[in-house]
Amino acid sequence: MIKEIVKNLKENPPLVHGITNYVTVNDCANILLAAGAAPIMADDSREVEEIASICNSLYINIGTLNARTIEGMILAGKTSNSKEHPVVLDPVGAGASSLRTTTTFELLDQVKFSVIRGNISEIKTVAQGQGTTKGVDADENDAISGDNLEETIEFAKKLSEKTDAIIGITGAIDIVADHKKAYIIRNGHPLMSKITGTGCMLTALIAAYCGSNVRHTLDATATAICAMGVCGERAYEKLLKNNGGTSSYRMYIIDEMSQLTAERLESGAKIEIR
Amino acid sequence: MIKEIVKNLKENPPLVHGITNYVTVNDCANILLAAGAAPIMADDSREVEEIASICNSLYINIGTLNARTIEGMILAGKTSNSKEHPVVLDPVGAGASSLRTTTTFELLDQVKFSVIRGNISEIKTVAQGQGTTKGVDADENDAISGDNLEETIEFAKKLSEKTDAIIGITGAIDIVADHKKAYIIRNGHPLMSKITGTGCMLTALIAAYCGSNVRHTLDATATAICAMGVCGERAYEKLLKNNGGTSSYRMYIIDEMSQLTAERLESGAKIEIR
Amino acid sequence: MIKEIVKNLKENPPLVHGITNYVTVNDCANILLAAGAAPIMADDSREVEEIASICNSLYINIGTLNARTIEGMILAGKTSNSKEHPVVLDPVGAGASSLRTTTTFELLDQVKFSVIRGNISEIKTVAQGQGTTKGVDADENDAISGDNLEETIEFAKKLSEKTDAIIGITGAIDIVADHKKAYIIRNGHPLMSKITGTGCMLTALIAAYCGSNVRHTLDATATAICAMGVCGERAYEKLLKNNGGTSSYRMYIIDEMSQLTAERLESGAKIEIR
Repeated sequence: MIKEIVKNLKENPPLVHGITNYVTVNDCANILLAAGAAPIMADDSREVEEIASICNSLYINIGTLNARTIEGMILAGKTSNSKEHPVVLDPVGAGASSLRTTTTFELLDQVKFSVIRGNISEIKTVAQGQGTTKGVDADENDAISGDNLEETIEFAKKLSEKTDAIIGITGAIDIVADHKKAYIIRNGHPLMSKITGTGCMLTALIAAYCGSNVRHTLDATATAICAMGVCGERAYEKLLKNNGGTSSYRMYIIDEMSQLTAERLESGAKIEIR
Repeated sequence: MIKEIVKNLKENPPLVHGITNYVTVNDCANILLAAGAAPIMADDSREVEEIASICNSLYINIGTLNARTIEGMILAGKTSNSKEHPVVLDPVGAGASSLRTTTTFELLDQVKFSVIRGNISEIKTVAQGQGTTKGVDADENDAISGDNLEETIEFAKKLSEKTDAIIGITGAIDIVADHKKAYIIRNGHPLMSKITGTGCMLTALIAAYCGSNVRHTLDATATAICAMGVCGERAYEKLLKNNGGTSSYRMYIIDEMSQLTAERLESGAKIEIR
Repeated sequence: MIKEIVKNLKENPPLVHGITNYVTVNDCANILLAAGAAPIMADDSREVEEIASICNSLYINIGTLNARTIEGMILAGKTSNSKEHPVVLDPVGAGASSLRTTTTFELLDQVKFSVIRGNISEIKTVAQGQGTTKGVDADENDAISGDNLEETIEFAKKLSEKTDAIIGITGAIDIVADHKKAYIIRNGHPLMSKITGTGCMLTALIAAYCGSNVRHTLDATATAICAMGVCGERAYEKLLKNNGGTSSYRMYIIDEMSQLTAERLESGAKIEIR
């Protein structure tokens, strides 16, 4: 499955429209280029419909949102829906402020999402209408562990049914689910949480893989998560050799993405079906 | 003093709210994570009060300011004041445009700052209501040297009394003062001025250290300045070994912050009391 | 010619005002510092006139434009014109949305540009009022090759006459032309297109070189393009040695810029006059 998904991206590199926060936008653009996709960022309501039209997919990340960009998100989302392009939502910090929670629900109301990816606290907010997100990080009480894994898988499947979107919950263990099927992914490294933007980059990457695999968005999402995780692992090995710190680690992750082959990804993926 | 300040941050990592410019925002987030703090950026007036409430401290950096973000700055500042969270001001480019100067004074009028950090030209603008800031860099005529050091210390103490804020003046020699006591810090490296964001990162770091040391903000500010300087020095040593340029230097500084121990910081700090 | 242009920048380092997109703004600031210039970013209409006044040159990059920043672009451009400072336009994505195309023409109408730099699709849009820009990249059908080189040089010269601006068309082969004279530059490396911001950084650099060489803006523009290309080549050699990926490549390019001497640039420049 992974090789096919990667092959489609390499053969038909997607143009990916991003409306995202200004903190990690540069990393998002660079990870897309590293993966073989092409990024375009545009958030003004007077151009997002045209830009969304010429792209293959869209991702909406609500970090550093404001009234102007929210309007652009909705218009871009509707256009992408009308073109049947995959649309990915990253509800950054949903639960941490009512603006973020309200905007998440406004987006869910107005736009049909193919994939919703967040940490467990953000996704619980999506499910429950409120949450305990600690800033932009997951609340520790929410963390997925061996103990609540089965329960969380069921939760993801049900939420997928409710939202008609693939649900991606990322953390130490990642879950990707539609209403029937779930993947559990155990790639990545804890140090990834010590650089900003790994979640944002992952969301961008999901949009890229989905953009080239519109009929296999569950597999495309799982592949993107594996890719990010495998790059995080390989980058960590490089870091140890060079005795680097977190900024080197950020660079190595993007480096690895630009050097990742389908073979390397498939052999490194720690993925199982539930 | 340094070890205690660092210990408090490591044991109670602060969540730090930043309203900052879009040029160096990514570096600010990454230096906070590298230091062991957690960043959240939010500037919309509809959410800054909630975000400021869940954080431990706030920093306001007026680079790339605009009407929308200025409103957010004031609301966030007021909320942080009401919660008795430390609030740090970085008056980037105050003196270079009337908007920046006026906004600085509007902020000083509406918000109680724990710390004001800037280069000497920016701080003179804060004191005098006008300045000769050369863009976002200090005017060379203002530079702190052996000749005017005592005078500048007195200036800082008086400004601290007037503003009821700790005053941090950074440059080749750094001064941190409240109305009674001043620290002189001689860490850092001239090459730090050849990358954008070292000042912005320092301000973020001050907010982090103050957020975990609310009753010792003078010492926390001095510790943050030493930390940035020591990382700048160590990064420079690494740069020489690897024959790198300024972009490598930027990376090494953040790397060093992620690897900095309290012991290393204490032994490297070149700090004296005046 | 190159040595003289570089010497002028080193001896009179320009302060460069940038109104640019939030994707690559940090790279633009860092490449300016690496080259020996000083950057300042300011986009609010209430301050751009003052900021433009204290600077030596201005560049306007329309990536991630919006109503607020467009107003700032026009005001800054007019001020720079009145001060006879060089103004450089980077019409990012002109042709990809009507907002970008319309804004490009509004800017051309209200502001006198010294230099317009873009990829071939963007420049064709400038010439024809419409284009086939693929997102923010050039349409492959437009690419400059040996076959259409002479034709494209003529096109650039005519457009220069029409707009009274130096025209820079960058791609695998770069063309810089005024209405009488053209330079062909063959520096650079294809991998430069795999990181975001090489075009944006180049535009910033052109503004820097022009800011210190106001009476030789054609030569200054050609020198900036050679400088970026030579750094791209040298960075690629370094990348091969270290087996790095695209993020390392980004860092090496800025590193090289900070280490570039006039001699190295002159000996590496692959430039001819047509």
